[in-house]
Amino acid sequence: MRPSSSTSETLLGELFADPAVDAAVGDAALVGACLEVEAALALATADVGLVPSEAAAAIVSAARGLDVDIGELGHDAVASGNPVPPLVTRLGAAVPETARPWVHLGATSQDVLDTALVLTHRAAAALIADRVDTAADHAAELATGHRDTVMIARSLGQHAAPTTFGLRAAGWLAALRGSATPLRAAADRLPVQLGGAVGTLAGYDGHGFAVRRALADRLGLPGGDRPLAWHTDRTPWLDLASALGVVAAAVGKVALDVRLLTATEVGEVRVGAPGSGGSSAMPHKRNPVEAILATAGVVRVPGLVATLYAASVHAHERADGDWHAEWPALRELVSVVGGVAARGAELLNGLTVDPARMQHNLELTGGAVMAESVAARLAGAMGRDQAHELVATLVRRSADQGTPLRETLLAEPAVTEQLDADALDAALDPRSRLGIAGAAVDEAVRRYGHRAGAGT
Amino acid sequence: MRPSSSTSETLLGELFADPAVDAAVGDAALVGACLEVEAALALATADVGLVPSEAAAAIVSAARGLDVDIGELGHDAVASGNPVPPLVTRLGAAVPETARPWVHLGATSQDVLDTALVLTHRAAAALIADRVDTAADHAAELATGHRDTVMIARSLGQHAAPTTFGLRAAGWLAALRGSATPLRAAADRLPVQLGGAVGTLAGYDGHGFAVRRALADRLGLPGGDRPLAWHTDRTPWLDLASALGVVAAAVGKVALDVRLLTATEVGEVRVGAPGSGGSSAMPHKRNPVEAILATAGVVRVPGLVATLYAASVHAHERADGDWHAEWPALRELVSVVGGVAARGAELLNGLTVDPARMQHNLELTGGAVMAESVAARLAGAMGRDQAHELVATLVRRSADQGTPLRETLLAEPAVTEQLDADALDAALDPRSRLGIAGAAVDEAVRRYGHRAGAGT
Amino acid sequence: MRPSSSTSETLLGELFADPAVDAAVGDAALVGACLEVEAALALATADVGLVPSEAAAAIVSAARGLDVDIGELGHDAVASGNPVPPLVTRLGAAVPETARPWVHLGATSQDVLDTALVLTHRAAAALIADRVDTAADHAAELATGHRDTVMIARSLGQHAAPTTFGLRAAGWLAALRGSATPLRAAADRLPVQLGGAVGTLAGYDGHGFAVRRALADRLGLPGGDRPLAWHTDRTPWLDLASALGVVAAAVGKVALDVRLLTATEVGEVRVGAPGSGGSSAMPHKRNPVEAILATAGVVRVPGLVATLYAASVHAHERADGDWHAEWPALRELVSVVGGVAARGAELLNGLTVDPARMQHNLELTGGAVMAESVAARLAGAMGRDQAHELVATLVRRSADQGTPLRETLLAEPAVTEQLDADALDAALDPRSRLGIAGAAVDEAVRRYGHRAGAGT
Amino acid sequence: MRPSSSTSETLLGELFADPAVDAAVGDAALVGACLEVEAALALATADVGLVPSEAAAAIVSAARGLDVDIGELGHDAVASGNPVPPLVTRLGAAVPETARPWVHLGATSQDVLDTALVLTHRAAAALIADRVDTAADHAAELATGHRDTVMIARSLGQHAAPTTFGLRAAGWLAALRGSATPLRAAADRLPVQLGGAVGTLAGYDGHGFAVRRALADRLGLPGGDRPLAWHTDRTPWLDLASALGVVAAAVGKVALDVRLLTATEVGEVRVGAPGSGGSSAMPHKRNPVEAILATAGVVRVPGLVATLYAASVHAHERADGDWHAEWPALRELVSVVGGVAARGAELLNGLTVDPARMQHNLELTGGAVMAESVAARLAGAMGRDQAHELVATLVRRSADQGTPLRETLLAEPAVTEQLDADALDAALDPRSRLGIAGAAVDEAVRRYGHRAGAGT
Repeated sequence: MRPSSSTSETLLGELFADPAVDAAVGDAALVGACLEVEAALALATADVGLVPSEAAAAIVSAARGLDVDIGELGHDAVASGNPVPPLVTRLGAAVPETARPWVHLGATSQDVLDTALVLTHRAAAALIADRVDTAADHAAELATGHRDTVMIARSLGQHAAPTTFGLRAAGWLAALRGSATPLRAAADRLPVQLGGAVGTLAGYDGHGFAVRRALADRLGLPGGDRPLAWHTDRTPWLDLASALGVVAAAVGKVALDVRLLTATEVGEVRVGAPGSGGSSAMPHKRNPVEAILATAGVVRVPGLVATLYAASVHAHERADGDWHAEWPALRELVSVVGGVAARGAELLNGLTVDPARMQHNLELTGGAVMAESVAARLAGAMGRDQAHELVATLVRRSADQGTPLRETLLAEPAVTEQLDADALDAALDPRSRLGIAGAAVDEAVRRYGHRAGAGT
Repeated sequence: MRPSSSTSETLLGELFADPAVDAAVGDAALVGACLEVEAALALATADVGLVPSEAAAAIVSAARGLDVDIGELGHDAVASGNPVPPLVTRLGAAVPETARPWVHLGATSQDVLDTALVLTHRAAAALIADRVDTAADHAAELATGHRDTVMIARSLGQHAAPTTFGLRAAGWLAALRGSATPLRAAADRLPVQLGGAVGTLAGYDGHGFAVRRALADRLGLPGGDRPLAWHTDRTPWLDLASALGVVAAAVGKVALDVRLLTATEVGEVRVGAPGSGGSSAMPHKRNPVEAILATAGVVRVPGLVATLYAASVHAHERADGDWHAEWPALRELVSVVGGVAARGAELLNGLTVDPARMQHNLELTGGAVMAESVAARLAGAMGRDQAHELVATLVRRSADQGTPLRETLLAEPAVTEQLDADALDAALDPRSRLGIAGAAVDEAVRRYGHRAGAGT
Repeated sequence: MRPSSSTSETLLGELFADPAVDAAVGDAALVGACLEVEAALALATADVGLVPSEAAAAIVSAARGLDVDIGELGHDAVASGNPVPPLVTRLGAAVPETARPWVHLGATSQDVLDTALVLTHRAAAALIADRVDTAADHAAELATGHRDTVMIARSLGQHAAPTTFGLRAAGWLAALRGSATPLRAAADRLPVQLGGAVGTLAGYDGHGFAVRRALADRLGLPGGDRPLAWHTDRTPWLDLASALGVVAAAVGKVALDVRLLTATEVGEVRVGAPGSGGSSAMPHKRNPVEAILATAGVVRVPGLVATLYAASVHAHERADGDWHAEWPALRELVSVVGGVAARGAELLNGLTVDPARMQHNLELTGGAVMAESVAARLAGAMGRDQAHELVATLVRRSADQGTPLRETLLAEPAVTEQLDADALDAALDPRSRLGIAGAAVDEAVRRYGHRAGAGT
Repeated sequence: MRPSSSTSETLLGELFADPAVDAAVGDAALVGACLEVEAALALATADVGLVPSEAAAAIVSAARGLDVDIGELGHDAVASGNPVPPLVTRLGAAVPETARPWVHLGATSQDVLDTALVLTHRAAAALIADRVDTAADHAAELATGHRDTVMIARSLGQHAAPTTFGLRAAGWLAALRGSATPLRAAADRLPVQLGGAVGTLAGYDGHGFAVRRALADRLGLPGGDRPLAWHTDRTPWLDLASALGVVAAAVGKVALDVRLLTATEVGEVRVGAPGSGGSSAMPHKRNPVEAILATAGVVRVPGLVATLYAASVHAHERADGDWHAEWPALRELVSVVGGVAARGAELLNGLTVDPARMQHNLELTGGAVMAESVAARLAGAMGRDQAHELVATLVRRSADQGTPLRETLLAEPAVTEQLDADALDAALDPRSRLGIAGAAVDEAVRRYGHRAGAGT
């Protein structure tokens, strides 16, 4: 088979895609999968006694050896609107005349193409899930390694209160691992497609269910016992698309955080191999390239997921356009999320943390980020609202006067009546205000730190 | 509580929404749910010994009795960017001074609002799933009642080969039931949210896990044992949005089929109560209103699902805009899919089938739709391709000459050498070419005909 | 007319919408516009002599005085699938019997509803454009006032080279003004709709063109001379939706920049009235609420724009669902962009700039952001690549050794051979490296600083 | 330059794309355009006296002769996140050492890539507009040729009232032509991009405006006099994307109508060259392949348009991900709409009309579609509502009794009191009820029948 061009071999491929993922859903893989389905169908129809086993063997042999010019096949596909008819013609020409009647027996183009797409997308999804698991492994290492690295947490863009980088990384871990497993599950649930021209399996003389079951078994796919074809029920693709969308969200979160944490003023993490991220115009710059490229992919995902939903309402027994829309839309979505996952794994692999800078930033507000801590210790005596208001006033006074919050607090009798200097220092120590952060990291790593067993 | 305006009470509400679903996610329900969360939080913090039980009881009592002017609350929400702070202020004012410090203890606005949205969206999803189950029940009746009603199947818009209306309805059934169950599952998995200001539960003196667990128990929500808050991991909403999208696809399929089958030239089904679907300008018309209104909702769903994915990447410890985008986007999606589901149930309830018209349409091509059947019986002798070509030629000849296909076939020696008139009539009988249709209906009704047990 | 509930009176309305914009497309406005169209149609048909002028006058009078219960009307709309038939029934009942035959003469529901939506959306778009112009006015003031306020420019998240805040604000200005004008233009191009039941204007005895022209004139709408109805050509809505999307992009840019510039570590701008942006849990915080709320709207826009495109392919002479999808989708898009525009105007109104902090941040990299400037002055002598590499090496050395770049450069003979200390200081002075910034601000303010004249 | 793989040479390319359009935005074209920009920049900087003209000439010569291995370039692009830096390196290596400092002078990667994308997308848009114009030409022929071919108009899926196929085709014409012109306009407005690293053009010693103007002149692009770079104002791409979306809507309408009109029961038009549209399983079928493939593209467009809007909010002076998202998203959108336009032109080229079948279908309702006509003639005497109700009753009676409507009407005194048999026959004649159809066709063909002049 002539190798097809894959996006990843081209100008933008290495930026936005993953060569292995693109190859898994590429032209050659898809044509190969179609032939694999035709071969399995021959065996399945022989299994139930509809086809002589010699004929089936000849079809299998021809399918495996067939040399397909993909450009020509693509050209010939136009007349019928899909590549299966001209592929069947080629396959038929490659088998002995006695086997020819049994080629593609009882099947319709959609049976072959849907099942082939199931095969290629299962493979691609497994690769993507692997990238995501690798990213999750790196996140687990970061969470463990920085279990107690204190940093400022930010909410709505503002410094809020202390947390640990370990907890941040544990959040990445949970979301990444939590997206890999459903992606594998959605891919593994993709069912065999066999309905014949209109879903009745009329070409199998009443043995339709048996052929469907045998085809599923031959291909190692689920769905052999479903009563109905899914010619017009596109839930399997929607599930796959949604799971890919969740992967993009999980990696996108890491990429967004890294873009924010590598900002020059923040500088709490660094990314990338030496030499990457250089600017053509500015020699001092080091751009978080992997995070940027991952983000570029993440931005494209909602529209592509929406396309699958938009194409999910299929008319009558088989759709007049929406089915066709799925092939390139799914491929594009897989390619984009493949690139996102690959960039995410690279990004996390190359991430280094700067605890000193985190400590520096933690102190930027002169202690104001510990205001909640102080207010909490005052609330018991004066009520939550009054404590909140008092501390807010003192925080503003401290900022206006340019004095550290500790001094301002110590100068305020309403505070010192409740808290002496030691109690105040305890309240102002970020480490005193980490709540369950450490334990949460431990538990998250215990739960999500390792890949699910094969096949789960 | 002042009743909120719900979409369903307005000009377009009854067209595009479901009053009960809209109410379940409406303003009053959301504010009520926020108060329910505050009450449960008071009890949960008392459960672990952080709060005096009298204070907790006072908070619960105040939350239950609070009279909130929703317009005023919405106005006051602008300063903080969400309605929880002014609601907490109101709640604080309604409890005795001694209980006041324990109101909203250790929580952040997002804890309350996310958990409240979980409560309202679980309720709404249950209502929607119920509508979908009702639609599925009707589809099951249609499938059973028309198990053997022969009709022409159409692929790519063209007459293809015979099937049964029962099989078409079984497909609707499988997709509808198959979308209700995952919707319930996604809704039931929506977890409690509790992280405190930055996810560390720092306000609970090391008892954070216990409070989260107690809150989940008090509210009957899962997620009490999760190590991490989901402040920035929005997978729960993505799962819900995706499940809603699948519901829209399932109902959309029914609506599309009905729009096509009620077309004047087709006329195989009729819909609607007497009087519905009248036209202002054309007294003879009877429009499939429910199918049209369902379609109008289905068209809007992909963009709304995409919005949830677009809003799913949250910065730092809590997002600066994407979180806020979720509230109206989720509500809109639920409202639209609620309307879709309601219209789908009404549509299927009012659907009647015209078997005579189906038989009439089946014969429109003069037998050409049985061409595959004839070709299949010739394939054994002359090979699949040659049989296909021969029959195609004869179909064209029959069409060109305006003679029934049967006559044309009988006039062709290459056919009559293989098939006598009886064999040909058998090949041309649609009932001989239904494959597993009947058995598939039986099995689909057996599997999907009944609602899943409560809670599954 | 009973006032309809508008989103802006409810829990989330003031957060995400603009009361005036919501009212302009609200139920009462839409019903009022439908009646205005019916009145204008009566006058137009009288203009061409098809209807007695007394009858037309009676219809106008009845339409103006009609008291419509919107909830009831919405209920009655279900039977026909749109509110026009029951509204016509009410109008018919309100006119003398002699005028009754002339009510809604020759029109179809879509004529009335599309034209009414044109009227309401023109009004709403004008309000939105006004908000955007107000935002642009504020941006012009900022650009002028900070024409020479130097700040660091950031590309790909990193400090890059100096610019001015004036230039940043000029960019906001250009995009904001540049989105208001096309929005007005798209709204002003929205044409009258009149085609009758199927686009032939068959109800006007050959006077169809004249009635369409008269209706357009009566309503002050364009399109009176179009040869065709636009029942199935939805370009007008696509143009409006696209223009609204561009507004969201323009405001979204301001909101994103403000979120980034108000980050605690950056702090170059401050926003909001005193008291806004407080946090329930953290007394020291001041969140950029308007920017966050604007962002929440901006995130929702692409999906809503996509919905209009998805609904733009209309079947036959009039669509069976896609038309219906437009009404709520357009209204939602207008409401969201209305809120975005209002938040944008408020945001820019309350924006204050901290030039000292900008200067502080400019120096954070110890001069490295002037590296390009130095490299440029060395390029002539040693070639661009070599200069770039040399300076990059020195920037790294300076960072590694923690010495200011100036010192490192002065210690390098390859530099000092070309540049003496004065030349180097000039190269390192941000003000020497602002290019056309000042002139660009002047020109941008000249071009975009003032609103376009009325009607343009 | 090594030819790049284009989608159109592959398995799905001929189905869903247009080879010429894909090539216009393909890798080779994009790299070529980048080199064209670098060459023009050299000349422009020489024009204003910043660069020796010999150096500029050398750069131009090297850019024109450069042999770029696109796969290698794509690989090298990863380090910087875009292909311009490695391309500049290659170009620098290809010029004499004396010219090297002047390569890429004062520009940033985004200047080159944005301007190159402007060049490639202008070319692609021109090709697409040409395909759309060809489609419009065919529609004009159909409109003219079938000006008076009566057919039934359908609204909401149901037979409504008579129209002409000419009017239907005139609607296609108006929308197609009406989408080609704005597409060309949006493409022609795409401006030159030149801002330098941060938009200040600081590399040009105060000659920034002059260089920008000269570059625009050299490339024949607008925008040379804009005061600001559009690094973060992405309106030009939004305008292009929106215009492409409108093209898809226009072609999508034709494709939908053709899918509906070729349905076996309808059969009013036929499409395609002999041999196209065959089915692998059903020899009698002839699928409207071009309409199906066009539809498959149309379904994908809203999500892709949304992606451009989603990527339109760019941070600071240059974005960290959203810019990168644009390149593949724009390319994909152009490729899909290119395919849509090509399929649309083919579809209309091969469309034949069956007036006899149209007449046959017109009569399917036994005259009920003329009910409005009859009601209109009765309205004057008995009032619109009563006439409408009376005729509706008679239409139902006629349908229930299976008698032609004419007979039922003649048997009803309330009718015959107003209309004698001749008047009734006139009312029942479809040709009497075509309104302005013929004149509208004439005017539409006059306005839209011919391509706009070059450059408009």
